[in-house]
Amino acid sequence: MYTAPTKDLFFAATELADLKGVAALPGHEEVSDELLSAILEEAGKFASEVLAPINHKGDIQGARFSDGKVTTPDGWKEAYRQFIDGGWNGLSFDTERGGQGLPWLVSAAVQEIWYAANMAFGLCPLLTQGAIEAVESHASEEQKATYLNNMVSGEWTGTMNLTEPQAGSDLAAVKTKAVKTNDHYRISGQKIFITYGDHDMTENIIHLVLARTPDAPEGVKGISLFIVPKFLQDDNGNWTIRNDVETLSIEHKLGIHGSPTAVLGYGNNGGAIGYLVGEENRGLMYMFTMMNAARHTVGVQGNAVAERAYQQAIRFAAERVQGKAIEDPMGDRVAIIEHPDVKRLLLVQKCRIEPLRALCLLTASAMDKADRHLDDEERKQAQGFIEVMIPIVKGYTTEMGLENVSLALQIHGGMGFIEETGAAQHYRDQRITPIYEGTTGIQAMDIVGRKLLRDGGVMAATVIEMIAEDLKSFSSDERIARMVNALNEATDDLQLSIAHILNLSKENPQLPAAISEPYLRLWGVLVCGWLSAKAASVAVSKMEDGDDDMFYQNKIHTAKFYFSTEMPKIKYYAGMIRTSGELIVEMNSDRFSVG
Amino acid sequence: MYTAPTKDLFFAATELADLKGVAALPGHEEVSDELLSAILEEAGKFASEVLAPINHKGDIQGARFSDGKVTTPDGWKEAYRQFIDGGWNGLSFDTERGGQGLPWLVSAAVQEIWYAANMAFGLCPLLTQGAIEAVESHASEEQKATYLNNMVSGEWTGTMNLTEPQAGSDLAAVKTKAVKTNDHYRISGQKIFITYGDHDMTENIIHLVLARTPDAPEGVKGISLFIVPKFLQDDNGNWTIRNDVETLSIEHKLGIHGSPTAVLGYGNNGGAIGYLVGEENRGLMYMFTMMNAARHTVGVQGNAVAERAYQQAIRFAAERVQGKAIEDPMGDRVAIIEHPDVKRLLLVQKCRIEPLRALCLLTASAMDKADRHLDDEERKQAQGFIEVMIPIVKGYTTEMGLENVSLALQIHGGMGFIEETGAAQHYRDQRITPIYEGTTGIQAMDIVGRKLLRDGGVMAATVIEMIAEDLKSFSSDERIARMVNALNEATDDLQLSIAHILNLSKENPQLPAAISEPYLRLWGVLVCGWLSAKAASVAVSKMEDGDDDMFYQNKIHTAKFYFSTEMPKIKYYAGMIRTSGELIVEMNSDRFSVG
Repeated sequence: MYTAPTKDLFFAATELADLKGVAALPGHEEVSDELLSAILEEAGKFASEVLAPINHKGDIQGARFSDGKVTTPDGWKEAYRQFIDGGWNGLSFDTERGGQGLPWLVSAAVQEIWYAANMAFGLCPLLTQGAIEAVESHASEEQKATYLNNMVSGEWTGTMNLTEPQAGSDLAAVKTKAVKTNDHYRISGQKIFITYGDHDMTENIIHLVLARTPDAPEGVKGISLFIVPKFLQDDNGNWTIRNDVETLSIEHKLGIHGSPTAVLGYGNNGGAIGYLVGEENRGLMYMFTMMNAARHTVGVQGNAVAERAYQQAIRFAAERVQGKAIEDPMGDRVAIIEHPDVKRLLLVQKCRIEPLRALCLLTASAMDKADRHLDDEERKQAQGFIEVMIPIVKGYTTEMGLENVSLALQIHGGMGFIEETGAAQHYRDQRITPIYEGTTGIQAMDIVGRKLLRDGGVMAATVIEMIAEDLKSFSSDERIARMVNALNEATDDLQLSIAHILNLSKENPQLPAAISEPYLRLWGVLVCGWLSAKAASVAVSKMEDGDDDMFYQNKIHTAKFYFSTEMPKIKYYAGMIRTSGELIVEMNSDRFSVG
Repeated sequence: MYTAPTKDLFFAATELADLKGVAALPGHEEVSDELLSAILEEAGKFASEVLAPINHKGDIQGARFSDGKVTTPDGWKEAYRQFIDGGWNGLSFDTERGGQGLPWLVSAAVQEIWYAANMAFGLCPLLTQGAIEAVESHASEEQKATYLNNMVSGEWTGTMNLTEPQAGSDLAAVKTKAVKTNDHYRISGQKIFITYGDHDMTENIIHLVLARTPDAPEGVKGISLFIVPKFLQDDNGNWTIRNDVETLSIEHKLGIHGSPTAVLGYGNNGGAIGYLVGEENRGLMYMFTMMNAARHTVGVQGNAVAERAYQQAIRFAAERVQGKAIEDPMGDRVAIIEHPDVKRLLLVQKCRIEPLRALCLLTASAMDKADRHLDDEERKQAQGFIEVMIPIVKGYTTEMGLENVSLALQIHGGMGFIEETGAAQHYRDQRITPIYEGTTGIQAMDIVGRKLLRDGGVMAATVIEMIAEDLKSFSSDERIARMVNALNEATDDLQLSIAHILNLSKENPQLPAAISEPYLRLWGVLVCGWLSAKAASVAVSKMEDGDDDMFYQNKIHTAKFYFSTEMPKIKYYAGMIRTSGELIVEMNSDRFSVG
């Protein structure tokens, strides 16, 4: 069972993520509170009625592989058809290609709903979205005309083929070959971890494949990007000719069992026909342009699965009668939600999920502004904000997501360990989010390397200043003022940490890497504190205006709890940044022994 | 692959858990360094060669149920036969019953090895151990003569039947009936979550079952304990008559797939024959006497699985070549263990696992002293130490275990999410340890309720004083002195927290419950800090004596890392204890809403 948190999504989009500012961008004039509200309602309905009911069943049955073919779980094909018939696939794409042309902000809110309802299902449109962006941004007009309409409508899906057995996160090690033959290339090699690399929901699949031409330079500068359709066009213009790409197996994974993760073999019969996107040797750069969107989406996913698990935990705790209330040991048994430690477990989840939702939407809003704002300076500022936030959205949201689903399972007690209950599935599904699209370690290296050391802290300082400026607009209510004080103090801790890291980097480049993860987390706690306090500040104003909804009371209460239980981690991470780097670097690898 | 950490187990037992003191107890005169060492080597060999190789296979195949019968995975029956033939089942039991009569301290060290090698397998002897203790402590001489020898040898296994569908942690709700008929009782009802409730490894299974007689008082004071053998004795003295207990199904669980978790139906054909243990209505009290040992064992398990996952992560990180060293971007690719963030992930695990191991052994050592010390005062002090430590051993060790196996999986990147690699199994298996034998929330209520509020903090103060006293014996080396200072400061934080909780309890009994979990964790961090510093202090002395083994250098380094990254959590938890209780209690349950 899943109920889309439409009220909080609407609140976060309108009050915290500047929907109004996005609606003022050229090309988004149709966006309004009413439109957002209508879309969220419709998406929530579709998610509850179509996607959520097949989530657990799909996990049990799983995607299956036999005779070289992949079959998705029962009901997925039909749900996919309804999904694309509803126009949901092309939400954020160009109306010229058949999309709805809606901003990232709106599509991010809708994505949370899909992933919460059914993460394994949602990965299919997610991968198609990435492939569409790659083609849209870098392919020729002819290629766009050939592929885009079918991909935007969802008649065809897309995949991203990066990983090879010997090359996980290290794309410099890619070995797949591409040899030019007339107007196309012959592709050969093996790719692993290809999400929806094969399935039975559409008639064609458009693979985007990283490979090397024979004379390409070594390393990341010799990688090119190719379009490799599963089926090629015949002389009559129909897509009937099977390309030389074979599904070798699908992985047996910890979670997201409904989504097939394929091992694909290219060119076992002479070479798969592929079409170069853009220029040779620029493939990795093309991939990088999509990376922010992909990482953002995985962050949304991490929070979506956490929301789903949280809802399940609330329902379970409200129904499960067990033990007496501590203040009334002679009374009747009570639902476990009355036990203080269960309330605590729920509040911890709530106080993290809500600001993380706001962070995901606010970053999406910046993506819209960076794309479309007419003012150069505004675009630049939005881009700087995105650069700093993406590793936080990806790395921190998914790590918090892991912790949250574990708390949600814990509330179930022994029932949480039984697969039938469903809590275990969220725990398993979530485990991939801090890994794919760049592990948390890679996100941490990004925020400390590219987003701090590279420019000596200029970009980070701009974001810090932006937050400090925003705090000045908060309500002067005493409860909020206390939060603002804590945030200002936290900002000082962040700035001291930054100064310390900049110094460390002069000593030894290993040192900033060694403490990059607590640095990432420090940022995460701080920006969520900012957005949590901002939500509370808005709530105070609404209540002063006479709107005494429990929703607003909860916003203030949740923020207070956040400032009691999450914000103090800032000091903890700042301490680790100060003291742990050398101890890590000094530990030679051969000192880790077994037995 | 698994290599028993015999060196560290030996170090922890001899230097931190007072093996010498245990060997001085009456009845344990045969215990010595040499004996311990020989046992650890043998156990390690058996674990590596017999138990570890069937762990992953057993997970994939799982225990199976068909036609009312349970089949364990391939090879388990044979491994079990080797296990009992080796005399491992009766390690800590009376030599008169065929056991080895060894102290808890030794058997706890050996248990870590079993659970690390194969947790799902190890649960079978664990449950038998609990059943033996119940019979040994509370059954009649005749019952002991009838059952104990076969249970100690392992020819028969034992189970504990507490949980019912409507009664999870809440045993007051037990409904299973027991009606007296001549010299026995007729038992009827359903029990769930029965670990090894049925299997094919032995010819008989001795179920210990909680049930209610017709005229029993309500609640926990009306529960009696019964012996219900799967097979009853026939007139020739052979155990051939099937009792009226039926296996209805086994659970589909998140982890420990090799171990069957049964739903047992008693009395579907007139009533299973059961024999009362001790007196009517005292069943729960009998269970309580075994509870400390059972909870201790689960703590050992949590750390054992963490050790196994840690070893796997080290091996993977040392073999997996990926990316360049940050300080040598033009050099060759390196094993990921050279990357600072991977080292960090390993060090975090190491700095937790080692003191938790020491804590488990030290508590076992206290169990031996509480059982056998000739001095009343010493026994009493040991018992007080046990009472405070058990919720920490169970609650904190398993929670840290959860975090650790997740870090171990993370080091594998995408490969960690593929079941084949094995990291995912540890992640799944571990998830039960903070749940069964009382969830972390229940452990937290125990340490704050029974172990603090009940006596107004006397017991806790005694333990704190004992630790403070012990610190005085530490090396005066500057590095150690710094740790001692931090520990003294932490002790102040603990004492302030205790004073605060004692005050809260006067206001509202919900308040101490609301902050019981951070209170449990504060204790956990502190005692591990104490034992970590103690290990370092011993290492300093050894090095001063000229033994410059890397093992000792690592002890000092690991403790320094612990004091950089774990100890500062004390302030964090103390803050939560001060500030979060009211916010939790104020949050009425109906304020948690969905959607």
